Amino acid sequence: MNRKVVFLPEEVSLEVLPGTPLLRAAALAGIEVKSSCGGKGSCSRCLVKVEEGKAIVKSTGKLSGEEQEQGYVLSCQALVGDQDLRVNIPISSRLEEHRILFNSPDNVDGEEEAYGAYDGYPLCTRFQLSLEPPSIDDNTSDLTRLMMALRREMGKSSPETEIKINTAALRGLAKALRERNWNLSVVMTYFPGNVEVITAAAGQNEKPLYGLAIDIGTTTVAIYLVDLLNGKTVLHHGSFNRQSRYGDDIISRIIYASEDEKGLNELHDSVIGTINEIIGQILQQAGINEEEILQVVTAGNTTMTHLFLGVPPDFIRLEPYIPTFSSTPAVKAKDLGLRVHPEAWVHSFPQVASYLGGDIVSGILYADLAENDEIVLFVDIGTNGEIVLGNKDWMVGCACSAGPSFEGGGITFGMRAMSGAIERVVVDPVSLEVQVKTVNNVKPLGICGSGLIDCLSALKTAGIIDRSGKFQSDLKSARLRSGEEGLEYVLVWADDSGVEKDIFLTEGDLKNLIMAKGAVYAAIRTLLRTLELDESVISKVIIAGGFGNYLHIQDAIRIGLLPDLEYEKFEFIGNSSLKGAKLGLLSRKALNKARKIGNMITYIELSVGTIFMDEYVSALFLPHTDITLFPSVESVENRN
Amino acid sequence: MNRKVVFLPEEVSLEVLPGTPLLRAAALAGIEVKSSCGGKGSCSRCLVKVEEGKAIVKSTGKLSGEEQEQGYVLSCQALVGDQDLRVNIPISSRLEEHRILFNSPDNVDGEEEAYGAYDGYPLCTRFQLSLEPPSIDDNTSDLTRLMMALRREMGKSSPETEIKINTAALRGLAKALRERNWNLSVVMTYFPGNVEVITAAAGQNEKPLYGLAIDIGTTTVAIYLVDLLNGKTVLHHGSFNRQSRYGDDIISRIIYASEDEKGLNELHDSVIGTINEIIGQILQQAGINEEEILQVVTAGNTTMTHLFLGVPPDFIRLEPYIPTFSSTPAVKAKDLGLRVHPEAWVHSFPQVASYLGGDIVSGILYADLAENDEIVLFVDIGTNGEIVLGNKDWMVGCACSAGPSFEGGGITFGMRAMSGAIERVVVDPVSLEVQVKTVNNVKPLGICGSGLIDCLSALKTAGIIDRSGKFQSDLKSARLRSGEEGLEYVLVWADDSGVEKDIFLTEGDLKNLIMAKGAVYAAIRTLLRTLELDESVISKVIIAGGFGNYLHIQDAIRIGLLPDLEYEKFEFIGNSSLKGAKLGLLSRKALNKARKIGNMITYIELSVGTIFMDEYVSALFLPHTDITLFPSVESVENRN
Repeated sequence: MNRKVVFLPEEVSLEVLPGTPLLRAAALAGIEVKSSCGGKGSCSRCLVKVEEGKAIVKSTGKLSGEEQEQGYVLSCQALVGDQDLRVNIPISSRLEEHRILFNSPDNVDGEEEAYGAYDGYPLCTRFQLSLEPPSIDDNTSDLTRLMMALRREMGKSSPETEIKINTAALRGLAKALRERNWNLSVVMTYFPGNVEVITAAAGQNEKPLYGLAIDIGTTTVAIYLVDLLNGKTVLHHGSFNRQSRYGDDIISRIIYASEDEKGLNELHDSVIGTINEIIGQILQQAGINEEEILQVVTAGNTTMTHLFLGVPPDFIRLEPYIPTFSSTPAVKAKDLGLRVHPEAWVHSFPQVASYLGGDIVSGILYADLAENDEIVLFVDIGTNGEIVLGNKDWMVGCACSAGPSFEGGGITFGMRAMSGAIERVVVDPVSLEVQVKTVNNVKPLGICGSGLIDCLSALKTAGIIDRSGKFQSDLKSARLRSGEEGLEYVLVWADDSGVEKDIFLTEGDLKNLIMAKGAVYAAIRTLLRTLELDESVISKVIIAGGFGNYLHIQDAIRIGLLPDLEYEKFEFIGNSSLKGAKLGLLSRKALNKARKIGNMITYIELSVGTIFMDEYVSALFLPHTDITLFPSVESVENRN
Repeated sequence: MNRKVVFLPEEVSLEVLPGTPLLRAAALAGIEVKSSCGGKGSCSRCLVKVEEGKAIVKSTGKLSGEEQEQGYVLSCQALVGDQDLRVNIPISSRLEEHRILFNSPDNVDGEEEAYGAYDGYPLCTRFQLSLEPPSIDDNTSDLTRLMMALRREMGKSSPETEIKINTAALRGLAKALRERNWNLSVVMTYFPGNVEVITAAAGQNEKPLYGLAIDIGTTTVAIYLVDLLNGKTVLHHGSFNRQSRYGDDIISRIIYASEDEKGLNELHDSVIGTINEIIGQILQQAGINEEEILQVVTAGNTTMTHLFLGVPPDFIRLEPYIPTFSSTPAVKAKDLGLRVHPEAWVHSFPQVASYLGGDIVSGILYADLAENDEIVLFVDIGTNGEIVLGNKDWMVGCACSAGPSFEGGGITFGMRAMSGAIERVVVDPVSLEVQVKTVNNVKPLGICGSGLIDCLSALKTAGIIDRSGKFQSDLKSARLRSGEEGLEYVLVWADDSGVEKDIFLTEGDLKNLIMAKGAVYAAIRTLLRTLELDESVISKVIIAGGFGNYLHIQDAIRIGLLPDLEYEKFEFIGNSSLKGAKLGLLSRKALNKARKIGNMITYIELSVGTIFMDEYVSALFLPHTDITLFPSVESVENRN
């Protein structure tokens, strides 16, 4: 009875029930289609073209007659009928550029634009010098001769005068100068207060000059290999953080590290090992050796940055939650044992507070908040929700513990967004039947964050749960049944699942999920109320983090996770921690700005005062106890 | 026939021939008696008191009747007669304080005075801090809290703002702060452009804060352990530079280091090993551990400084004689493998040129030339003669190759000033008999630099050699005989020597010695003539180096090694390289001034132009072809 839909130009096909809107079908196929009216047919953003077959068109909205003749339909208003379809989704209707941006190093135009805003002086630069040889009448030392030449070169671009040289470079200097007749190539690091000759080699060198931007996440570590001379990401790799064996979340890692010095060393070695393994893959793929990587910039949350530097994170989890450092000193790669040039400097992005780290500062830098006149809301949702609100003149930030639900923790069949995780869920409001899409389109093993949000929204829209997240026990559906922990809703029957049993959600799962979304929304509200503002001041909502890319904004609003703003105001920026680290790598000005951002953000400790707790309690409904905060949801509910 | 003379209060006794002046006898006993009139009885500086026995008094000079009654005599005018004598040499007549100054750490008054001229801010200081603990309302990071407190402390004394912290100190910071209720003791290095927290430890610390001043000589390495809080030298040790096994002189070391990387590494390891061995003795004697030594300052010649830092010295010996560096970057002790706190910074004194090194800059700093209105001549005589002339407004310097004669090289029975080396020689003008004194008063093994100068002067005065250093072949003395290489003069007969053969000097030995003294004097003249000055402008001659302490100024003038100036103008300052390094350790201002001195000295390359060669040829006589340059010698010769 299912019908086959093929989406073009990808030729992605899937089978769906008749009556499924094309917008939903596209989502199930992993293609994000723009939409901002909540599927009412009024915004015309979800335009697609039916190339073969015929869809059931509920409404043509504002489509012209000509468009209709060419086969264009609004995908929210066009349902699959009794025919197989071939549907072309034009670029203009796609949200997907964000995911491409995040995943493919070949497509970094968006990033390049951002770099244009900076000074173009990376932390590491190469000078090609041709020195006048010494004579008996001009017998200054090699180093003085080099420094004078460097100062002439730098005079064009930098006022710094104190130039250092490391011992290794000094030891090779005399021979390097004389090997190619006083022509040499000098790599310098160039950060204010730290101007140093890193290498000095004979002759000219036209090879690329490499740096690494590293995002040290609690779960994953991602690295860009960047050509510092042209700003391009040459390639990238990522891997799970090997620290995971000591605990999934930050708190269990801190506890492990606090037990004894051995624990700290193990965690430090784990993250260095993870990074070195990724670097190994990068070196092999790029066909370069580690001595060619001459600069490193990292961004990570406060605990990850502490562990990366081998600094005990013990007091981060103890009131009053004090990290050892916020702005971090640069460290030599050799002191950390990183597989790059031993004299390379490693800069880490500064922290705001124990739970608002360098990854967020890096994201804020990348998102250019500090240049904005208008007020922007920056949201990074993971185990912790990290939220910053502000513009170029002020910023406030906070972190709330969302719990592990969005990463699959505390949910009966929860899992990370790995192969087999349900990431999309559609519930037919009439039949109460369910369609799911998994990562890599294999048999479902469990459900990940974006699937859970989809699901919560769909269950509510279909009337299967009420506003408090409880099942409507009088519903007639085989999927709603009594289980060991009360009512449960079956998403996938055992026959279709990859775990050979039914995959279901319990009321407990839904409660955890509602607490998680409530914490994030309450944190946003707390920032606004602390400043006596409301949602209307927000000109843009930036969703950072890998999770954000897979989020359905409308579902997130429908469940009350994100504020009810026009769809156009939301922007996904992917792994902005990594992208901001790249900015820092490529621009001294950017890294300096990151320090300013770190100092500029006023950290609001949510446990102080009562605002957060009030907001949290109010947010434990779908979407909220105060439905007027969610006018778009209210209007849909009224219409239904 | 010899008579016994006992000098008091030391109770040093020796036997001398009747007719020996007490001044000479004292010199043979190793006691330096002041004298500036050349033994004419006119200056009254050589006053001694005959306590027992009777001397033959040639002249009473300006002595009062009362003084004569008390037994005072002028030691240059009082000869040993037919009685044994006990002679007291009062402190006021002694030159020896220089040697005491050099040898005994308990007697550093002279040095303390010099330190008074500086700012009293050593390169390393300790701050005792008591921080306000953090709270939920004041949750800046530990590091920020520490930096704010340090800036408040430093505000009193220093404008530097950029404070760094090394990773090791950062890793221990959180626990150090909390262990003693936010009281801690912080050691900071404090050199401009390099302000860093070296250690941060819980609680208050009233123990001494130690630093090392190190003189890295080609032959010997000497170290002061200094209490940085009160400026006192706690103890000192020295040792032969283990590099000697690779060659006695600088050039053979450079050649060895230039052969391959292994050679360089061996020489680097040797000097580090030498230093570490001395540090080991210091640690044991002082009862401290290496982590308590938190700052190091070294001074050495250019080649020694290169080898100490592991920098190839290859091009120092090749025209145009270019060192790799002049002003040297500070290095972490851990990067050199020094047995001190691994995070301690090691500063090396800057070089002027390949053959005018940090040891001389350090000496100039200690001698305070750069503060002097009047013109001072600074002379350091070893294998190389290093000479600086100038005042606070200008300085010129040069280095001449004196050859190894002054250190015993190229002399048939030459040796270093070790036990058994003849260091004093007296020749009776009538009998042509010889008396010698050796280091440690053991049987003679050979003759060292000061003995050779004594000898050259005595042979000339006794008329045994002529002005060109040739033996007067018609002299009747068993000591003057024909040997394998022509005429030779026997200083010690085989029966009296420790080597069971005659110890003698050949004309070739004398020629080498004359070439050595000629090079030094010609270098002095070249500096003067380059500036169109003559000896009369020199207000003071500072003789640096261990050798200087054992030099008889009058003999040195008599042979034409040093310019013929009043005795009062000469000053011995001992190991000024070591003492200057201590100054640098104790005063940022001093170390900065050393950098200025390094830049300020105009290096005169003697091989450029003809002045030096002209002067050198003229100086190959005793004292000189132009006797008018040595009026005091001329007047003595005329008198004789």
